[in-house]
Amino acid sequence: MTAPIAIRRLNAADQDFAQHLDHLLSWESVSDDAVNQRVLDIIKAVRERGDAALVEFTKQFDGLDVASMADLILPRERLELALTRITPEQRSALEKAAGRVRSYHERQKQDSWTYTEADGTVLGQKVTPLDRAGLYVPGGKASYPSSVLMNAIPAKVAGVPEVVMVVPTPRGEINEIVLAAACIAGVDRVFTIGGAQAVAALAYGTESVPPVDKIVGPGNIYVATAKRHVFGKVGIDMIAGPSEILVVCDGQTDPDWIAMDLFSQAEHDEDAQSILVSPDAAFLGRVAESIAKLLPTLERETIARTSLEGRGALIQVADMAQAIEVANRIAPEHLELSVENPDEYLPLIRHAGAIFMGRYTAEALGDYCAGPNHVLPTSGTARYSSPLGVYDFQKRSSIIHCSAEGASELGKVASVLARGESLTAHARSAEYRIKN
Amino acid sequence: MTAPIAIRRLNAADQDFAQHLDHLLSWESVSDDAVNQRVLDIIKAVRERGDAALVEFTKQFDGLDVASMADLILPRERLELALTRITPEQRSALEKAAGRVRSYHERQKQDSWTYTEADGTVLGQKVTPLDRAGLYVPGGKASYPSSVLMNAIPAKVAGVPEVVMVVPTPRGEINEIVLAAACIAGVDRVFTIGGAQAVAALAYGTESVPPVDKIVGPGNIYVATAKRHVFGKVGIDMIAGPSEILVVCDGQTDPDWIAMDLFSQAEHDEDAQSILVSPDAAFLGRVAESIAKLLPTLERETIARTSLEGRGALIQVADMAQAIEVANRIAPEHLELSVENPDEYLPLIRHAGAIFMGRYTAEALGDYCAGPNHVLPTSGTARYSSPLGVYDFQKRSSIIHCSAEGASELGKVASVLARGESLTAHARSAEYRIKN
Repeated sequence: MTAPIAIRRLNAADQDFAQHLDHLLSWESVSDDAVNQRVLDIIKAVRERGDAALVEFTKQFDGLDVASMADLILPRERLELALTRITPEQRSALEKAAGRVRSYHERQKQDSWTYTEADGTVLGQKVTPLDRAGLYVPGGKASYPSSVLMNAIPAKVAGVPEVVMVVPTPRGEINEIVLAAACIAGVDRVFTIGGAQAVAALAYGTESVPPVDKIVGPGNIYVATAKRHVFGKVGIDMIAGPSEILVVCDGQTDPDWIAMDLFSQAEHDEDAQSILVSPDAAFLGRVAESIAKLLPTLERETIARTSLEGRGALIQVADMAQAIEVANRIAPEHLELSVENPDEYLPLIRHAGAIFMGRYTAEALGDYCAGPNHVLPTSGTARYSSPLGVYDFQKRSSIIHCSAEGASELGKVASVLARGESLTAHARSAEYRIKN
Repeated sequence: MTAPIAIRRLNAADQDFAQHLDHLLSWESVSDDAVNQRVLDIIKAVRERGDAALVEFTKQFDGLDVASMADLILPRERLELALTRITPEQRSALEKAAGRVRSYHERQKQDSWTYTEADGTVLGQKVTPLDRAGLYVPGGKASYPSSVLMNAIPAKVAGVPEVVMVVPTPRGEINEIVLAAACIAGVDRVFTIGGAQAVAALAYGTESVPPVDKIVGPGNIYVATAKRHVFGKVGIDMIAGPSEILVVCDGQTDPDWIAMDLFSQAEHDEDAQSILVSPDAAFLGRVAESIAKLLPTLERETIARTSLEGRGALIQVADMAQAIEVANRIAPEHLELSVENPDEYLPLIRHAGAIFMGRYTAEALGDYCAGPNHVLPTSGTARYSSPLGVYDFQKRSSIIHCSAEGASELGKVASVLARGESLTAHARSAEYRIKN
């Protein structure tokens, strides 16, 4: 007997559809005062006592018996050893994935440019990599080698000379595939620390841990809170919400495939969100049957069930045009266009982290090895933000080199505008450059 | 008699130079609990009561006698009227500046791209503009038309269909040049509201104010705090610290010019920072004399004096190599290379918001009309962030379109990696796409 599953059904034709959709999508991350205070205390301790604080917190939170900071440093040789401890099949898969991720990201690399005006004035933009990037990798169960590739490779492609990784090893548990991925991705240094203390160490530096310019990578609520607090001192990536998928299907894909695609999101955690939109009501019914049939066969059945019942939905729309409208309203992290002619709809998609086109392009292929990044904007933030990329590890400096002639002409304009703003030192600085 | 001015002198050869420099640069923005609570209350009120709350707060904070929201909307015709109320010289200067800013920013525009692999799989990146951007413009004294150009033009170049501007008009005071700049920059809608309430309205929308996807533009502590709180619901630009300039001079520029360049930063506000670095000790002395001589001639003498005495410095270095080292350590918002051969040093500069090259390129030229943006990373954040640009109003979506063949090959790799992470629904979703 399959346990019945109650997954929400919505119809875009219903009068209160917009409200139901808003409710379905609503997500506010919890800002807990106790967590905040705890994190602030940890950051303060690391700033004040450096390595000693890291050793203490690691003993306390990770249950590790460490004598000194030296026990929390993994040399490059340890990463190379990990490569020999995973199966050849795993090593080959990691290398293939890394190669594809690298090759895709190479195309995101931006170059400096300049142009020269008639009077000899040169304008442009200089693009440089960050000096040092920090990569947070969660320990224990949620330790994902694929995330190591997705975070470290763009940094190395950008030309960041030093990528520093932190990964907690609770009760001494080390994930060999994570270390192997770090080796393949070109991570330069690894510290086996985690939590808010690792974020603080990366932001401010300690005797052993070098301060970085930007911290990326997922983590629990302590890590996310710490990243928020150190933002400004260093750059951070987005604070991610729960992962989500929106599948738009014309009703012609195998319902088992669609059910499994929805599961691949739902199995992440209880708050993950899987939504299917189709103009074909009968197809929605068939997918519901596939879900009921396949759910009990999942290793992570309980998580997937909670996710689907709490935050999942099957949405009926009038036609594909309305399906695309719903997709743009949701601005999903992952959008599967499981339709015959995805190219027809692509120009209409305004907001999505990643677009998986056609029946063969399961999100899971993009999660691991297609090439594009799997760190994507969640909770509708695709309206204004982008996948993690090489551009996150490069920054720009404007270049202005005025000729004497150019400065004289620009000086006249600047003078008028500066005086209009009552900034007369600005005006006079510009006026010095005007030729008589 | 000129009032004596005490500006800090440092020497990079001193043993404790690094500490002195750290101290000079240290800046922590004040996070005041009272301001925070006030802002949270305002945001809550705007979310709950919309226009009614905006009208109330505007009466209360801006001392305006408004009957309804209709009194807080400026139609496009009002902007056009402003164009006729400024001097022809001002209009021409605004138009020249806007033309140059537009032309520079056009070169930042990014395009979508795709590539096709041997098996027919297509990968790429789709670039789209935001749907709607919000531009905060401060009212009263600190109301800068140049900021309107610098914030609105990149958004319009990016292709943002609707740019919504908010600008408070305390006691009814309207800055005609600001409205004229908005007209020239192509701002689509203007509301005469300000403070945290305007930020809340832009983030969440009210009956009259449409919700935007990203809010940019400078503001006071209430505005900055509100932007921090709505971040996540919408995108925001950087929270700027005080403005700063670092002038690196070989000792051959007219000391009066350098003094005025330092003043052009110092006149902004008491916390602004102006630093000069030179290997020529005698030149530092001559600039100090120029400062003492010219300071009393400034309209904003008191502000500039406080800024220079509190946060300014003249730094002596051994040679130009050390000067560049100091520049990279500071990662200044504005870097003037007032030297004979700036091209020689440009490749060595790793961190700076904007680089002003040669003796003729006063920062003020870039502030108003050279073309590059004047919204730049402050307080050392140029280590990891960039000038405001067209890229801030565009976002990317990854494109993945696997052929049947491609999906089959990728499915095998994804399956191994997903099983290594115990995500078996991911694995099975990928395996469905493997051909037998």
